[in-house]
Amino acid sequence: MESFFSFLERRVDDCSSLLCVGLDPHLPELPEPTPRAALGFCMRLIDGTAAYAAAFKPNAAFFELLGPEGWDVLRQVIEAVHAQSTRLGSRIPVILDAKRGDIASTAQAYAASAFEKLGADAVTLSPFLGSDSIEPFLQNQEKGAFLLCRTSNPSAGDIQDVKVQLPGYENAMPLHEWVARLAAQWNSRNNLGLVVGATHTPTLAAVRATVPDMWILCPGVGPQGGDLEAAVAAGLRADGRGLLVNVSRALSRSDDPRKAAAALRDRVSESQSRGRRHTA
Amino acid sequence: MESFFSFLERRVDDCSSLLCVGLDPHLPELPEPTPRAALGFCMRLIDGTAAYAAAFKPNAAFFELLGPEGWDVLRQVIEAVHAQSTRLGSRIPVILDAKRGDIASTAQAYAASAFEKLGADAVTLSPFLGSDSIEPFLQNQEKGAFLLCRTSNPSAGDIQDVKVQLPGYENAMPLHEWVARLAAQWNSRNNLGLVVGATHTPTLAAVRATVPDMWILCPGVGPQGGDLEAAVAAGLRADGRGLLVNVSRALSRSDDPRKAAAALRDRVSESQSRGRRHTA
Repeated sequence: MESFFSFLERRVDDCSSLLCVGLDPHLPELPEPTPRAALGFCMRLIDGTAAYAAAFKPNAAFFELLGPEGWDVLRQVIEAVHAQSTRLGSRIPVILDAKRGDIASTAQAYAASAFEKLGADAVTLSPFLGSDSIEPFLQNQEKGAFLLCRTSNPSAGDIQDVKVQLPGYENAMPLHEWVARLAAQWNSRNNLGLVVGATHTPTLAAVRATVPDMWILCPGVGPQGGDLEAAVAAGLRADGRGLLVNVSRALSRSDDPRKAAAALRDRVSESQSRGRRHTA
Repeated sequence: MESFFSFLERRVDDCSSLLCVGLDPHLPELPEPTPRAALGFCMRLIDGTAAYAAAFKPNAAFFELLGPEGWDVLRQVIEAVHAQSTRLGSRIPVILDAKRGDIASTAQAYAASAFEKLGADAVTLSPFLGSDSIEPFLQNQEKGAFLLCRTSNPSAGDIQDVKVQLPGYENAMPLHEWVARLAAQWNSRNNLGLVVGATHTPTLAAVRATVPDMWILCPGVGPQGGDLEAAVAAGLRADGRGLLVNVSRALSRSDDPRKAAAALRDRVSESQSRGRRHTA
């Protein structure tokens, strides 16, 4: 059995890309507020960008808001990514951005919903309830999870940046660093990564230093204020991989998502090889 | 306009009860794993216990696992509670246990889904992303939210109990206490409460001391190990209210949920008046 991150790394190599394409059918972005329009919005992005996508990341909230039919659209969207994978001869993982976090018995239901019912390959999770809330998502090593560590929103620091004092550590550390250390402990099957926003690159660099080997999903580039080149420089692993750069609006608002995705992929690769030359 | 907690307090007085009835159509509890069986499971509980319920709390995960039809069942379940309210002449709030937590634009979608699409009166939320992830749920003061503070699961302490050092505070405090203090600050419209599990009553008592006026939703009584009487003693507000005791399996597994709910309501009231006599 292949672990989730072996599977992701194969895809990254196949498409020479670290780009994660966000699928956020936010109502104001749609021509009309219907499940059909949400499906059209996502299909245009999937068809246009699949060749350059290391992964796709649909956000559960925007589908949920469309009611029961929205959940059916979400299932179809995930199916469409897998159909594109077959066409391309290279399987593209789907990361369901759901930010779940609940006690173990409930977490099992969320995991079954994401992986079995919807067919996603990975999910995003909140660390707030601790290890027993995460474990149900990691049991099958072919499926993966990305744990929120330091998010890209303005008030992320309210909780994530508070200084914590831990037994066995001389100095206090920000909570997000403790989350990264816990995640590294919990990642016994190579299927747990982190979410670290691009909006504060020193934090991204610090998390990378704490967990040199883990995969990081990095949202917040573009409209949220994160700089792509700076994020790649701060978050890349020593082997030039280990970072998924999520882009949503820059693609969905483009007249030609294919061209925009190719250009973004190339910008990431350019920063990536700069980073490698720097390391070498 | 009435705030969510004024509305809840009216209901608490109408039914002389602090009981919150959990609606958790967990697949192994159903005669068959279908949306129809989940609806039947919830309707039996609603019909049986409405007279003694200060609130109902459906857990989104168990409906989500049933696919698009599950979301339709969730909407019907919430509608059924409101229909019972009409019959009883006393509106019973529905708290959607969803534990959401996302950046503001996504949180808006989750809030619209819970309050407008599904018709819930309140939701449970994770504090991990800070104030801008909570604010979209508080804008309409008639709707409310309960913020996870100290949950009832075995590994809750991994994050929630770490000691945090905050500017302006001489001593370190557990993270859950910081969450309670933040929630008190954010509760400017009387529509934000806390979730504190019944499994560790000293923590419940400590949170109550930190936020003497806030509402606390208290899960974990029964199979999870929390003692009902101890939780009521630890969590009650000085006015004998301020605590919702959630019970799920003790009702759903009972041959007669009505009788079981009446008995539980009376046990809560008994502990409640003991607490009051104690205070007086």
